[in-house]
Amino acid sequence: MTERRQLRLGAVMRPTTIHTGAWRYPGAYPDANFNLAHLKRFAQTLEGGRFDLFFMADHLGVLNMPLDALKRSHTVTSFEPFTLLAALAGATERLGLVATASTTFEEPFHIARRFASLDHISGGRAGWNIVTTSNPDSALNFGLEEHVEHGERYRRAREFFDVVTGLWDSFADDAFIRDVESGVYFDPAKLHALNHKGAHFSVRGPLNIARPIQGWPVIVQAGASEAGRQLAAETAEIAFTSQSSLADGQRFYADVKGRMDKVGRARDHLKILPAAFVVVGDTLEEARAKRAKLDSLVHYDSAIASLSVSLGHDASGFDPDAPLPEIPESNASKSSRERVVELARREKLTVRQLAQRLGGYAGLAFVGAPAGIADQMEEWLLAEASDGFNVMLPYLPGGLEDFVDKVVPELQRRGIFRREYEGATLRENLDLPRPRNRFFDSAEGVADVSS
Amino acid sequence: MTERRQLRLGAVMRPTTIHTGAWRYPGAYPDANFNLAHLKRFAQTLEGGRFDLFFMADHLGVLNMPLDALKRSHTVTSFEPFTLLAALAGATERLGLVATASTTFEEPFHIARRFASLDHISGGRAGWNIVTTSNPDSALNFGLEEHVEHGERYRRAREFFDVVTGLWDSFADDAFIRDVESGVYFDPAKLHALNHKGAHFSVRGPLNIARPIQGWPVIVQAGASEAGRQLAAETAEIAFTSQSSLADGQRFYADVKGRMDKVGRARDHLKILPAAFVVVGDTLEEARAKRAKLDSLVHYDSAIASLSVSLGHDASGFDPDAPLPEIPESNASKSSRERVVELARREKLTVRQLAQRLGGYAGLAFVGAPAGIADQMEEWLLAEASDGFNVMLPYLPGGLEDFVDKVVPELQRRGIFRREYEGATLRENLDLPRPRNRFFDSAEGVADVSS
Ligand SMILES: Cc1cc2nc3c(=O)[nH]c(=O)nc-3n(C[C@H](O)[C@H](O)[C@H](O)COP(=O)(O)O)c2cc1C
Ligand SMILES: Cc1cc2nc3c(=O)[nH]c(=O)nc-3n(C[C@H](O)[C@H](O)[C@H](O)COP(=O)(O)O)c2cc1C
Repeated sequence: MTERRQLRLGAVMRPTTIHTGAWRYPGAYPDANFNLAHLKRFAQTLEGGRFDLFFMADHLGVLNMPLDALKRSHTVTSFEPFTLLAALAGATERLGLVATASTTFEEPFHIARRFASLDHISGGRAGWNIVTTSNPDSALNFGLEEHVEHGERYRRAREFFDVVTGLWDSFADDAFIRDVESGVYFDPAKLHALNHKGAHFSVRGPLNIARPIQGWPVIVQAGASEAGRQLAAETAEIAFTSQSSLADGQRFYADVKGRMDKVGRARDHLKILPAAFVVVGDTLEEARAKRAKLDSLVHYDSAIASLSVSLGHDASGFDPDAPLPEIPESNASKSSRERVVELARREKLTVRQLAQRLGGYAGLAFVGAPAGIADQMEEWLLAEASDGFNVMLPYLPGGLEDFVDKVVPELQRRGIFRREYEGATLRENLDLPRPRNRFFDSAEGVADVSS
Repeated sequence: MTERRQLRLGAVMRPTTIHTGAWRYPGAYPDANFNLAHLKRFAQTLEGGRFDLFFMADHLGVLNMPLDALKRSHTVTSFEPFTLLAALAGATERLGLVATASTTFEEPFHIARRFASLDHISGGRAGWNIVTTSNPDSALNFGLEEHVEHGERYRRAREFFDVVTGLWDSFADDAFIRDVESGVYFDPAKLHALNHKGAHFSVRGPLNIARPIQGWPVIVQAGASEAGRQLAAETAEIAFTSQSSLADGQRFYADVKGRMDKVGRARDHLKILPAAFVVVGDTLEEARAKRAKLDSLVHYDSAIASLSVSLGHDASGFDPDAPLPEIPESNASKSSRERVVELARREKLTVRQLAQRLGGYAGLAFVGAPAGIADQMEEWLLAEASDGFNVMLPYLPGGLEDFVDKVVPELQRRGIFRREYEGATLRENLDLPRPRNRFFDSAEGVADVSS
């Protein structure tokens, strides 16, 4: 009997890797992000490693950057989440499949249907990452001149969630009797038309699809703002987040779980998963060398632009192979500059190495031997800085195989990560309750995520 | 060398069968319409029969009828097209996958992306059935009080098509060079931002996905009105249609192909496929008996309501087991009443049988032995009433297996239907040209479907 807190692991797979140099890494697949055969194999590898879920971020436009930087991006062509995840459902059996969908640029009826359909197709493995869309340029693809205002986006998101979950509840779980003898296909008493009329949406319903296998697909949120954290506390069952230190992680964790207390939700019913960039070596030195190699593949022009932004000072004139010079005070964010200066000092990085680190990935990273990585993951778990991680891989397939072959067994040995899936659905594997149907189920002994 | 005109065959698979009694037929799967394992097997059977395509109709609401009739409907729960077709792409290799998507209730950026993604996932087998949405109740699920006006729907559809195809052309076919050495992933000269600003849409682009494998997925249209036929003539490569007699079929065919002449498109570049309900028996008598059995499974209450509507006269008081009595004149459509009276006389149907025929399927039907069905299909083909058919099956799996095992070999023997797929993509199998990329290709020797 395992009494230890269990780690939850997602893998960020759109982009297959966030690191801009990854597609050039020796032995990596340059087209990893846009090759269906590869993606099927990655999903199967994740399942072999007993990962909870495959996570697809999503952006409604080509990322906002000058063509000269964009041309180096391996994510400029990506599959669309619903179609890709439905295809991967057939290549896997237990892996959760989480798609990002925007509440700002979509319609609740379509989103409710697509997730319900994906949940049925995958046998109950769908999850919805609710975003209000971070890239402001997306608005230009949907008839707007500028992005919808932040507060308004979140108000719309909250109502969108109510409509979608209300549509998922259109049919009772046992509505479909298919009685060949009498010719009755479903019990009409078990169908409810939503008749929603709110500030943003008016949706009659019912949905034209049976209730999802999980009741509702698992709800995910990644907002960082006050409004984003509140939405997560009220509705989400997984929170993705970006935290750069254990202390930051603890603060975020306490904040969101505290908000859950206030709205009367059990803390266990939301799993907080910070994004972690993981580079595995057989030794610490080897892992560091891999990362240095990877960073060296970031183009210097884009790298130096990132460094200039972080410093609030034009860095293009610095000697690339010398240490970072003293930087005069400026109006730029002092904390950002100090973080960069401190990073250069700590890791003894040249200007070039520092710039390439920032142009690659500069957030939370676990770089080391398998035991060292497991130590850090366990530390975050025990310190209540997280309930697990959304793992970002350095390059594919090597970085993924290293994690599954070396880190996963180490986590399993420590009794903090599953050896076998506990159930058939994502919800069962995450030990999350099944939401009650607001129109048909009694309120006892059921989930608290409902409006 | 085959010189004969070739028949094109689609299969209507959402609903798996349009006949409301089908799920009750002896040996049929009652859940055929909503069972993924069955649907995969059906798609594989169609592929074994060398069908051109699997066609998913789509409706954005639960069909508009009273609960007491609705409760007998086996299509009230259906998969959503993009997710189902992406799942079926993995279970098949050559079968075309046509999804219906509404230009009235969707956004062009989303639709362009999803079809492009489906086309990449399926290796170039996607098709888009452009509809303006026939069910007026759909509007209630998208914040409207009533359906968008017909002419306005078609104006929006035309612009929607221009935007979607323009987004598909965002990247040249050879944009992605993935040069690991130089670090250039795509050639920026081969990316075009659409910058569309029109009456209905303003969409900057570019699309965040490579050009579809087929250039564009195959364009399908099913509009019957003047505006619908014009849209088909201007843009479509397949027209689905409902025609009840050979003469009607010829008129429609001549009308639409004549419209193509006027806009300067080659007649071959649009395949006209009327819907045909097909019931196969080893003999004519057996086929008729199957159909009578099937019709008898339609509930009498719904059936009599259909009959009353067609007659413009309340039929609920008629003796169900007697012939149709004389009907007094009324304001109802005279042609509809005459068609029904003539049908009852020709097939010597009782009131019950007539009502159940109307409640089942009363459009074009080929009911007979394999040779008789092939005769009729060949007749339509040679008489230029169609380029093939969109086959509607009576019940599943039996009706499908009968067609593939018995009718397909008969068509092949006559040299009017393929024995092997000609190509890898839907476009290749239909012998349709690949659309040129308006931003990157020269105008020579390429498709004429472009704006
Ligand atoms: C791990 C992670 C994944 C995210 N994925 C997406 C995404 O796919 N699409 C998107 O528009 N935003 C994404 N975001 C951004 C968040 O949705 C959110 O906009 C951002 O954290 C800023 O928070 P705020 O919107 O509450 O101000 C992601 C954030 C994190 C931390
Ligand atoms: C074979 C066939 C399939 C159709 N499938 C759909 C469909 O899936 N969704 C829909 O809204 N309309 C569908 N329609 C309806 C047409 O799109 C169109 O609305 C109808 O034929 C009336 O024509 P009009 O809209 O030009 O007046 C279909 C029609 C036919 C003949």
